[in-house]
Amino acid sequence: MPSPNTTPSATASTPPDFDSLALPHVAALHAYTPGLQPTEPGWIKLNTNECPYPPSPAVAKAVAAELGADGAAGEVGAALRLYPEPTSAVLRAAIAAHHNTTLSAAGINGTSALRVANVCVGNGSDDILNLLVRCFCAEGAGQGSESGRAAGFTLPSYSLYPVLVGIANGQSIEIKFDRSMRLPLEQIASSGAAIFFLTSPNAPTGVGFSAAQIEALLAAYDGLLVVDEAYAPFAREDAVGLLARYPRLIVVRTFSKAYALAGIRVGYCLAHERVIALLDRVRDSYNVNRLSQAAALAALGDPQYYAHVIARVCATRDAALTRFAEQGWFCYPSQANFLFVEPRNGRGETGAAVAQAAYDFLRERRILVRHFPSPLTAPFLRITVGTDEQMLTLWHTLQEWLHHA
Amino acid sequence: MPSPNTTPSATASTPPDFDSLALPHVAALHAYTPGLQPTEPGWIKLNTNECPYPPSPAVAKAVAAELGADGAAGEVGAALRLYPEPTSAVLRAAIAAHHNTTLSAAGINGTSALRVANVCVGNGSDDILNLLVRCFCAEGAGQGSESGRAAGFTLPSYSLYPVLVGIANGQSIEIKFDRSMRLPLEQIASSGAAIFFLTSPNAPTGVGFSAAQIEALLAAYDGLLVVDEAYAPFAREDAVGLLARYPRLIVVRTFSKAYALAGIRVGYCLAHERVIALLDRVRDSYNVNRLSQAAALAALGDPQYYAHVIARVCATRDAALTRFAEQGWFCYPSQANFLFVEPRNGRGETGAAVAQAAYDFLRERRILVRHFPSPLTAPFLRITVGTDEQMLTLWHTLQEWLHHA
Repeated sequence: MPSPNTTPSATASTPPDFDSLALPHVAALHAYTPGLQPTEPGWIKLNTNECPYPPSPAVAKAVAAELGADGAAGEVGAALRLYPEPTSAVLRAAIAAHHNTTLSAAGINGTSALRVANVCVGNGSDDILNLLVRCFCAEGAGQGSESGRAAGFTLPSYSLYPVLVGIANGQSIEIKFDRSMRLPLEQIASSGAAIFFLTSPNAPTGVGFSAAQIEALLAAYDGLLVVDEAYAPFAREDAVGLLARYPRLIVVRTFSKAYALAGIRVGYCLAHERVIALLDRVRDSYNVNRLSQAAALAALGDPQYYAHVIARVCATRDAALTRFAEQGWFCYPSQANFLFVEPRNGRGETGAAVAQAAYDFLRERRILVRHFPSPLTAPFLRITVGTDEQMLTLWHTLQEWLHHA
Repeated sequence: MPSPNTTPSATASTPPDFDSLALPHVAALHAYTPGLQPTEPGWIKLNTNECPYPPSPAVAKAVAAELGADGAAGEVGAALRLYPEPTSAVLRAAIAAHHNTTLSAAGINGTSALRVANVCVGNGSDDILNLLVRCFCAEGAGQGSESGRAAGFTLPSYSLYPVLVGIANGQSIEIKFDRSMRLPLEQIASSGAAIFFLTSPNAPTGVGFSAAQIEALLAAYDGLLVVDEAYAPFAREDAVGLLARYPRLIVVRTFSKAYALAGIRVGYCLAHERVIALLDRVRDSYNVNRLSQAAALAALGDPQYYAHVIARVCATRDAALTRFAEQGWFCYPSQANFLFVEPRNGRGETGAAVAQAAYDFLRERRILVRHFPSPLTAPFLRITVGTDEQMLTLWHTLQEWLHHA
């Protein structure tokens, strides 16, 4: 044993080759690229599908209350010294109750209601998606004995799925949409994926799939179907009503979009209780902090406020879509809080270069939208629905671009 | 393609065998068991090493400020609609600056200071530990071509390590302490582990390892050494000063203990920038929410407050240790905010049954401590250092038990 006072040897202090110490698939990874989050003010931020309106006033009140006063002298903030409830139990119960109320109002599932055991809460829905990959998608799937445990998803869809599968060293099965963006039901059914992630409404196109289409897919496809409903509150239909009859269905939701709470990182899934039990084994035991649990709970308690916010976003969205159509720009019918629109320049041209030019023009004027360079998406811009005022500024800036380009 | 209106088939609606759909190692997992978190008031909670004092008053102020007012009408809570800064960049910079100040005050490393690129922030230090396992510990390690990528740790130590390795389907190498709890340097050095997790001060014993001992270990062991310093603010020494000279060293810290912020879930590691870059590829892109980033930043900004809290906890700890010693109860010298003590009953007996009896007696009187049933730990109780008043109640209750048992 070397003396503690020995001068460190060259071996100890020379940086090792970290990429060879890391697992090979990790060394080869590229991280997910989130949309830009400028920290300076003055941007019109239509790039990450945040809600343009603040969360319910009940949220800030609940956060303030949760800061607590359990200290000897009733100090503000004292509750933060304690770990959060590990399972977010109160929030799980409120989520189940919320969906039961919604289902009941729609005349669905009076008897087979969702229970606490059907809910898992995550540090954002990204946490839930990660847990699903870690539970059901095998390392090296399809390359040996573990075939049949690959993860499937459509192209385009939420670009995090392949990143999560890559981190797990699993195999991805990509099912390409054609330009119609219609649900490729037969291709998914015959994909051989053990678990399939379907974004509905789709991102970045905004195209929604009906409950009947999801049900048809569940009949045709025999794996686990994850319907990622991040944008479902803005859609005409969702898949929650199918859960009671389809145990292979997993519905993922988030507080980041319709609840205007991207800053708190809370998402959840609804699924068969056996699926939830598996996720809970892999989940970090304290994955959701105290303030975020309190904030999400308060948001769920103010459905009237959010019904108003959602109606306002949908009205702005539909008005913007009409304007684009009148301008002669193609835009997919959106059931989300964003539009996927194909810019056409002053010479009537469309395409990747045109979309990139429009993106750059907007960005120079401090308007952020999103441009995805893969072939099917490159001629388009994804534009988050902002306030009416922001959308008007966007519109005027695009008119400027038309005359400029 | 079935009609959307078809009655669901039996195949679609019969619950599948979820445990066989899950990866085999996931189906066999047991979740980490966190300490009890009673939600009703009235407990003296000395079971999860939380700080008995509230966080700095600056924390609640910072959380209130972060709730923000970016809405059109300046609504409170409006900032929560926006995603957090993905990398916790401001917090990373503050963490680097904090440690540089501390090192400087100690006369270490004037020239080779920590930089932002040496810091990764996690959703609790559990998130960081999970990322380290996912980056460096191979699935099925030691059972084939991937041997040499196993994860090592001591027994006892933080019981989450084997859980995280199990979730990753990796191989664990356990190095047992003997009752002396002295650092088993030679055994770690020859363990063959690719990455070794050393809790220092150790949990649950509280025994701290000096910087010289860590340096000797780095000279003898050639893998990545993770020194989990969750309790280091309560210790005489830490390993941060070694980082500049030992690129294979990774130091993990948390805001849950000395910063009295278990409720916000923030932890971090300090490491070579290449290690940080790997962790960032596997890390969830928005892993730390807005309020927690703000809270941690505010805590770092109030070192005087925390110096006082830490001094108070250490004084209470040392007084309790003296009392136990005077009582004739063995207790390891603690450099953490808890004591690992071997209860001796009224008949002078020690052992697992005696410790369990003391645990039960305390619990019936609403005092929660921790009892770990494995052989080396079973005769002991781990008692978090509470306020002086709480420790007095504990002491009186143990006297009652002595006369009762």
